[in-house]
Amino acid sequence: MPSQFNFRVESADPGGARAGVLSTPHGSVPTPLFMPVATLATVKGVDIGRVAETGAGMVLANTYHLHLRPGEAIVEQGGGVGKFMGWAGPTLTDSGGFQVFSLAKQVRVTEEGAFFRSHIDGSPVDLTPEAAVRIQEKLGADVAMQLDEVVALPADRERVEAAMRRSLRWAERCLAARSRPEQAMFGIVQGGLEADLRQESAEALRRLPFEGYAVGGLSVGEGTEAMVAALAATVPHLPADKPRYLMGVGQPQDIIAAVAAGIDMFDCVLPTRCGRNSLVYTFAGQVRLRNASHAADQGPLEEGCPCLACRHSRSYIRHLFLAGEMLGPILASIHNLTFYQRLIARLRAAIVAGRFDALRQELLARFSAPAA
Amino acid sequence: MPSQFNFRVESADPGGARAGVLSTPHGSVPTPLFMPVATLATVKGVDIGRVAETGAGMVLANTYHLHLRPGEAIVEQGGGVGKFMGWAGPTLTDSGGFQVFSLAKQVRVTEEGAFFRSHIDGSPVDLTPEAAVRIQEKLGADVAMQLDEVVALPADRERVEAAMRRSLRWAERCLAARSRPEQAMFGIVQGGLEADLRQESAEALRRLPFEGYAVGGLSVGEGTEAMVAALAATVPHLPADKPRYLMGVGQPQDIIAAVAAGIDMFDCVLPTRCGRNSLVYTFAGQVRLRNASHAADQGPLEEGCPCLACRHSRSYIRHLFLAGEMLGPILASIHNLTFYQRLIARLRAAIVAGRFDALRQELLARFSAPAA
Repeated sequence: MPSQFNFRVESADPGGARAGVLSTPHGSVPTPLFMPVATLATVKGVDIGRVAETGAGMVLANTYHLHLRPGEAIVEQGGGVGKFMGWAGPTLTDSGGFQVFSLAKQVRVTEEGAFFRSHIDGSPVDLTPEAAVRIQEKLGADVAMQLDEVVALPADRERVEAAMRRSLRWAERCLAARSRPEQAMFGIVQGGLEADLRQESAEALRRLPFEGYAVGGLSVGEGTEAMVAALAATVPHLPADKPRYLMGVGQPQDIIAAVAAGIDMFDCVLPTRCGRNSLVYTFAGQVRLRNASHAADQGPLEEGCPCLACRHSRSYIRHLFLAGEMLGPILASIHNLTFYQRLIARLRAAIVAGRFDALRQELLARFSAPAA
Repeated sequence: MPSQFNFRVESADPGGARAGVLSTPHGSVPTPLFMPVATLATVKGVDIGRVAETGAGMVLANTYHLHLRPGEAIVEQGGGVGKFMGWAGPTLTDSGGFQVFSLAKQVRVTEEGAFFRSHIDGSPVDLTPEAAVRIQEKLGADVAMQLDEVVALPADRERVEAAMRRSLRWAERCLAARSRPEQAMFGIVQGGLEADLRQESAEALRRLPFEGYAVGGLSVGEGTEAMVAALAATVPHLPADKPRYLMGVGQPQDIIAAVAAGIDMFDCVLPTRCGRNSLVYTFAGQVRLRNASHAADQGPLEEGCPCLACRHSRSYIRHLFLAGEMLGPILASIHNLTFYQRLIARLRAAIVAGRFDALRQELLARFSAPAA
């Protein structure tokens, strides 16, 4: 294990939720944590100082995207993905597995790796487990992810099983390809919605020397209930002393449910993607800013929110969206990122204070209401 | 004169440049000053806190645009244009005359006013001098502008002369329509490139009780030399104790020449418009960020620049532009706005220190170089 990488559980709720601290070469961050997504080494529309102001402690970037543009060599020359984008804290890069599955063209996956064409210019790209490690080492994040094979759900059990087993073989190849001990690596549990496959994947991965474990393949709209079932089949089989990361999830209610299931780390594009589309999150539920009801509303997006957007009125931010001004998406993204950090901080504080379940129930009732 | 509005010249260069202080109900700002343009109550792509960090002291918004979206009633309910956009300092609104001339459709100008169709949805709009004052009073800026008639150059002398004389009559109507003594109003000198018409316009306007005087019709690409000639025909006929505002100008070399001619106030969209197009200003000349020469350049846009963008490498910001990320335009706009504020601050310091002409010559030599 990299000497500067460490994870410590500080409080655990009887139901499974836990509060901890993740330590990396770029500092320590409390868990549960939510990572804003800086796909191309930028959290879309938000300068990195403003990202820090939202309360974020750790940022995620995408291997697939950065490999295509600007290329890992440029990022490496810039001091690695953190320094390149001006982020002093911890960073994580995914391996590209999910993007190959969701974005790339003419994808052919063999035992050797994934072979596909760039969604930008159609140029051929080979992404083997070894290449995913080599690229991520150049990107230089504190945490790298193994390459995995992701399948679209619903899928035949055979297809899910084959991809899970291949992901296990790729996990071993990723570990064998490592050359930078200062960079942690997480394995990724696959197995779709098949409980026994999830368990088998988790059991096999925990025997490998990863510094943490991710749960993959659950960010593609299968619903909170199916996600919770998959987590219940997975988390008990992961080591208690390693961080658990649920990739690409999700809506606030999903994050609450996953924290309850013992997940420590999250990333999701929703705060910025929804923000760009004028949909904002509040503790009273979602708000559609384009609605005429906000035209002269002098109140902030959310009372008591300390974010930059909430120094303005809903009336102003609605005007920005209707006028097509960049500042609308910028402010709504900042608000949503702040909301996610406040949500995760509230969950953590409740775990520490022994009142997690009460907060969970209170919040889930609010987030099930329709957007205002 | 509004009791809280005041202008004081503190230092004057023998050549005509001057350093002063403009005081408004929302605070005092040093002159010469450069106003970032917040067309629709937002400086495009830059949150208002970042605008303040560039060193800007006063911000301009557009009556024409705000009348169409969101409408002056919404802005008034939001506390006026400054409060609406979260800007605590002084603000100025133009009257819409230039936008009617440059943006609106099916424009018909009579002695009564301008009648046209919105460039957004084609709806009919009447903009008389009285309406321009009424709208600006609702927008509530510290400084309002008279409605003027702008003509495209080159133009027949008769056309220019008729518009100048009509603008004078509209100046009187604007003054007669005022109802809010706390809002200052500036007259606008017209007369195209005809020296005697400029002089006549200035002489006539100075007899009217405006708190300041603008020079209009010189932001439409007639060139630095023609601009300087028009200013030479105008400025000596304006009162020395009132602020002089050159509307919509311009490139750094134009601003330097205009300060030399005795101008105190500027506004221009170039810093943000060029920034969005990856063109940045530096004291060593312009830089085209998309050029491949910057691909691995670890240096900032400009050494010694304190702006947010200059905490990053050129390599990073170029990557943002090539990847189509919003942060590229955001950072380049912030840099350019900072550059303009640093330029104007250097000009002011040189005036105060009695070395304006040396700085002027040094800077003009640099800014005549092609973009790198």
